[in-house]
Amino acid sequence: MRLHLVNPNTTASMTAKIAAAARATALPGTVIDARQPTMGPVSIEGYYDEAFAVPGMLGCIREADRDGADAHIIACFDDTGLEAARTAAKAPVIGIGEAAFHMASLIAARFAVVTTLSVSIVPIEHNLRKYGLAERCARVRAAEVPVLALEERNVEALGKISAEIAAAIRDDRAEAIVLGCAGMADLAAELAGKHGLPVVDGVAAAVTLSEGLVRLGLKTSRLGPYAAPRAKTYAGLLSPFQP
Amino acid sequence: MRLHLVNPNTTASMTAKIAAAARATALPGTVIDARQPTMGPVSIEGYYDEAFAVPGMLGCIREADRDGADAHIIACFDDTGLEAARTAAKAPVIGIGEAAFHMASLIAARFAVVTTLSVSIVPIEHNLRKYGLAERCARVRAAEVPVLALEERNVEALGKISAEIAAAIRDDRAEAIVLGCAGMADLAAELAGKHGLPVVDGVAAAVTLSEGLVRLGLKTSRLGPYAAPRAKTYAGLLSPFQP
Amino acid sequence: MRLHLVNPNTTASMTAKIAAAARATALPGTVIDARQPTMGPVSIEGYYDEAFAVPGMLGCIREADRDGADAHIIACFDDTGLEAARTAAKAPVIGIGEAAFHMASLIAARFAVVTTLSVSIVPIEHNLRKYGLAERCARVRAAEVPVLALEERNVEALGKISAEIAAAIRDDRAEAIVLGCAGMADLAAELAGKHGLPVVDGVAAAVTLSEGLVRLGLKTSRLGPYAAPRAKTYAGLLSPFQP
Amino acid sequence: MRLHLVNPNTTASMTAKIAAAARATALPGTVIDARQPTMGPVSIEGYYDEAFAVPGMLGCIREADRDGADAHIIACFDDTGLEAARTAAKAPVIGIGEAAFHMASLIAARFAVVTTLSVSIVPIEHNLRKYGLAERCARVRAAEVPVLALEERNVEALGKISAEIAAAIRDDRAEAIVLGCAGMADLAAELAGKHGLPVVDGVAAAVTLSEGLVRLGLKTSRLGPYAAPRAKTYAGLLSPFQP
Amino acid sequence: MRLHLVNPNTTASMTAKIAAAARATALPGTVIDARQPTMGPVSIEGYYDEAFAVPGMLGCIREADRDGADAHIIACFDDTGLEAARTAAKAPVIGIGEAAFHMASLIAARFAVVTTLSVSIVPIEHNLRKYGLAERCARVRAAEVPVLALEERNVEALGKISAEIAAAIRDDRAEAIVLGCAGMADLAAELAGKHGLPVVDGVAAAVTLSEGLVRLGLKTSRLGPYAAPRAKTYAGLLSPFQP
Amino acid sequence: MRLHLVNPNTTASMTAKIAAAARATALPGTVIDARQPTMGPVSIEGYYDEAFAVPGMLGCIREADRDGADAHIIACFDDTGLEAARTAAKAPVIGIGEAAFHMASLIAARFAVVTTLSVSIVPIEHNLRKYGLAERCARVRAAEVPVLALEERNVEALGKISAEIAAAIRDDRAEAIVLGCAGMADLAAELAGKHGLPVVDGVAAAVTLSEGLVRLGLKTSRLGPYAAPRAKTYAGLLSPFQP
Repeated sequence: MRLHLVNPNTTASMTAKIAAAARATALPGTVIDARQPTMGPVSIEGYYDEAFAVPGMLGCIREADRDGADAHIIACFDDTGLEAARTAAKAPVIGIGEAAFHMASLIAARFAVVTTLSVSIVPIEHNLRKYGLAERCARVRAAEVPVLALEERNVEALGKISAEIAAAIRDDRAEAIVLGCAGMADLAAELAGKHGLPVVDGVAAAVTLSEGLVRLGLKTSRLGPYAAPRAKTYAGLLSPFQP
Repeated sequence: MRLHLVNPNTTASMTAKIAAAARATALPGTVIDARQPTMGPVSIEGYYDEAFAVPGMLGCIREADRDGADAHIIACFDDTGLEAARTAAKAPVIGIGEAAFHMASLIAARFAVVTTLSVSIVPIEHNLRKYGLAERCARVRAAEVPVLALEERNVEALGKISAEIAAAIRDDRAEAIVLGCAGMADLAAELAGKHGLPVVDGVAAAVTLSEGLVRLGLKTSRLGPYAAPRAKTYAGLLSPFQP
Repeated sequence: MRLHLVNPNTTASMTAKIAAAARATALPGTVIDARQPTMGPVSIEGYYDEAFAVPGMLGCIREADRDGADAHIIACFDDTGLEAARTAAKAPVIGIGEAAFHMASLIAARFAVVTTLSVSIVPIEHNLRKYGLAERCARVRAAEVPVLALEERNVEALGKISAEIAAAIRDDRAEAIVLGCAGMADLAAELAGKHGLPVVDGVAAAVTLSEGLVRLGLKTSRLGPYAAPRAKTYAGLLSPFQP
Repeated sequence: MRLHLVNPNTTASMTAKIAAAARATALPGTVIDARQPTMGPVSIEGYYDEAFAVPGMLGCIREADRDGADAHIIACFDDTGLEAARTAAKAPVIGIGEAAFHMASLIAARFAVVTTLSVSIVPIEHNLRKYGLAERCARVRAAEVPVLALEERNVEALGKISAEIAAAIRDDRAEAIVLGCAGMADLAAELAGKHGLPVVDGVAAAVTLSEGLVRLGLKTSRLGPYAAPRAKTYAGLLSPFQP
Repeated sequence: MRLHLVNPNTTASMTAKIAAAARATALPGTVIDARQPTMGPVSIEGYYDEAFAVPGMLGCIREADRDGADAHIIACFDDTGLEAARTAAKAPVIGIGEAAFHMASLIAARFAVVTTLSVSIVPIEHNLRKYGLAERCARVRAAEVPVLALEERNVEALGKISAEIAAAIRDDRAEAIVLGCAGMADLAAELAGKHGLPVVDGVAAAVTLSEGLVRLGLKTSRLGPYAAPRAKTYAGLLSPFQP
Repeated sequence: MRLHLVNPNTTASMTAKIAAAARATALPGTVIDARQPTMGPVSIEGYYDEAFAVPGMLGCIREADRDGADAHIIACFDDTGLEAARTAAKAPVIGIGEAAFHMASLIAARFAVVTTLSVSIVPIEHNLRKYGLAERCARVRAAEVPVLALEERNVEALGKISAEIAAAIRDDRAEAIVLGCAGMADLAAELAGKHGLPVVDGVAAAVTLSEGLVRLGLKTSRLGPYAAPRAKTYAGLLSPFQP
């Protein structure tokens, strides 16, 4: 099976780190085809970055879909461009945010999210509401750690994330924690051990869920909003992306 | 990996059929340990049957957990006794209803459920609300087919289920269908082909999800309502189940 | 009128205490027929105990219904087995949890619940959501007092409950308090006096509501999920409960 | 016990009819003190009538409260002025709409309302949402029968109401019916018999609920929005109502 | 264009202050026709005052409508009598509460309300839920300042309001503030400057919104609950208001 | 005042048509600065087109903001890129979808949307939920008319839209209609006259609302998700858009 994992930002070192996390989880027969766009922001922190990460990310999706990907994983916790990607791909598409929310829902009545910056709290809350899982989430917390500060092991960042987890257990009745950034993939086990509760990383969650969809033969429905894009002209710089 | 699959009713032929469906989906290294209780109803149709299926089902969970199960699947679409099972097992527990709802949410904005009898509509609606996925579900429909009528290939039952799927597409804007009974596990592919949309069977969905939890090392959180039962006396007939 | 009051746990002294509270509220012509199962847990604290309390409780319901009960009261705040009981009885059935929520809704815009252990918070929240009254409830609080600690007057337990009431008024804008355990029935008046707000005990609330249903001639509807159980075989230990 | 029942419109014959229904339900020792305002509309059909019914109704509440009423019932299905009445009375206050919704919730998972005119659908829906019971209500239907057409037995009106009940069972999965007008109090038994499901009349429901509150010693909380009105000057025509 | 602005209380100095705020916002060609009833409370603080403010307010609406008002503004933050006013007027009607909520929703994902007394919190919460905007509101806070204390510049009142704004930013993640009383209209600019976030005053918001409705030719729909009142007799003191 | 109106697709004739509608509504002193991107799709029908319309649209926003726009209007009913635009502009930003929903909420308790293609139903439903106004919307209907078919007067398209309006009144209890495409701006008056209910066009609604925000001095809050984008590198084709 061939899983296409796209890091929607343009930071190659982050792609490598996420791909390693994905490979550590994937089944023996699964190939992780990790890509990143050549255009767009170096990290995604808020709505503006998201908007400019999507075109390049969709380019990766289209290419990998043509190359025979069995499923696609969008490796940004905001699930950047997830819905557009579903219309663009024949294979199913999963965001690491939704993957983490669904997995956390299977092991806890109530979870909390710890993300990077507070500018991302509302977008994550909107996703939770769109997916239907807002009531399962006790609170979305921000550790106020920029995305790229997570590229390497960073004791200060780890401390801030750990403090938010402690607060979520104490103040929000959180029973499990969802780590709200692809760059936190390597911290889950350590934080779970330290705080004595399940800690869910979206990258690993998305790998098992997308392998599951492929094994079940389930693909995105074409009957509703995920119908294939209608043929039409795209002007200018973006004409290569024309459906 | 060892998955314990419990059919909460006492009909052995149905256990065999469900186990076959599970084995057809499971990973090569996964052992499906299918069980059924020796006490309780021959099928579960409504709240009363549920109540008397739970003790025997929990007995199976406790035994299989002691025998080293890595995860448990409750193979009744009402997710009978799911919450109690989570308190009783060290390993994670998944119901086939919730498994199907979560998987359907990854491939469609809006799905419909087709279950057996209308007496089950409200319990399923309550589960959807409890899980948070009620807004993702366009409608829960009943084909008015008794559970045990699904044991063998039954043309009349298939026709009724197919008619409800057609109605769900036409009237409810359903983009995908969730089959609302473990006994329908063998119909998914045929119905998907006929109606041209994804059809999700909960047994197969639960197999991939529980394998996913095991591979991710995720277990039920003990911090909230799924804490292990407190030690106490159980009187009479049920004293063997004392925590 | 004959009200059957079932304490779903097997602790006879608790049944006697609850029955006394019920008799103190009941109309002159009402007979309180208090029962408890001979099988199951000595107290109900969480989902596992609930699951094993239900069969014996339903046995009491079926017997009392045959003996001519005009209504049934389930005297556990989790409303253990309420829905199954409705299918099993010709007479209407009320849980003391729902009784308290409905009565509190008539005298306050916003109430809080003070229950025994935090393991019960989520089950009570789920009930509130199922009944529709979740938005009326400011918060479910746990005093961390085990159920059986309430059997006799217990100054320490009373102090903990009182402290949670004070916190609910100060922090949650609670206008009324619902006591979240049948064993707290004798504390309502004292706590109402102390804190200067209405305090609702579910046992007394359920007595007046069930007398009301009987006087109005209202019985559980058979058109939906509370239809009588379908005839079928129950195997083994639980075969006496076969519908 | 002394129950004050106020018909908020000025039609004395309707007051008499409602009072008779209340007396037929009340306990032997209960006195029904039925009143109606001397100012305001002859019937309440929509927001404008409501606005002008409230002052006179509140006058009745204040007088009856001073006269020693143990509880007040507002006998208009829109629960006209209910919240203001709660601030004005020492005794508890119940609206017949909320009374019917709460009672119906105890005997059915899902009920429908059949009211007089479609202009009342939205106000009733808003009440249901305010009380928290909107999800319990399958649909609010209007029979397009004016309020005063219900004063005497009216075969045509009965036929229209009966047709809406049939539609609610067939199309809305209604398990019980709430009659949405005080003037329908005499039709409940006949319609229940005809359609084979529970039919709830708010007047009778409110009598048993208010007797229940009195017997439980529960009064409206003063801690929130139902605090007694602050002393202040009222100008002109309405100065007699000054708090 | 002619905007009728009605202050539903009888305090003329407050009408003058509100009218000045409205004129400061209105378009050059807009005439502000400010009125107040001659009957009813001098200020509106809670449900009881509301009930007695409505008849006089509706009288003003009817007269101004006959005098050719192009739109009506109800200048009390509780939107007192808004729905009845819509049935009574040919021209559209806006409450300053709803005006402020809608405008705040256009500039912030999440706003907080700071109102006068805590007795108004629940009525405002109910309005927010009725309008659909409850989830946009982080919290309704009360500064515990009586309405008439806001008539003149009052340093103590300003300090209390400012303290609640600071708390809303710090504790509620409020991004914008809605001032919850017509009497606060003159404080918006000062508080916005001090706290560095948008502060919305309902009077000014309602002026631009009602001018907008008039310019768009939009009037209240007559198809639903805002149909014109049915002709009928009103008895006694209130007969002049008969439809 | 200077309003920047951006048509997010690249069809100049559509920009001209929308600009004309905006100018017909705008105040005498308002300049409508209509723009369209030079890159992206010729029409927006679903998530994929949206994704590629956003970068060019944000380019227009940034330029017009630098050119001194007092407010921005995004003239696509899906409110394409609205949130990103808020972070990118100093001036406030309004989408024509949200503008229409807010205006419709002021004149009807319940409205329906009639949009172009059914692929847009779910995106519009998600917007309604995000804005909080989902409960105010009876139903989102699609006339199955492509966006560019609306460029010129098209009798067949008008007939389909009119048929959906008729159905919304008859089947959905719609009291007002929101036209779900910028290209329908010229049809509102005709359809309102024909069907006898208010018909809201988002372009005109957005003009008055944005003029209102400017006159009130209200700008997008920077405290939450609409904070200005953080400075960072954007790679490749999209580097000109780097914050």
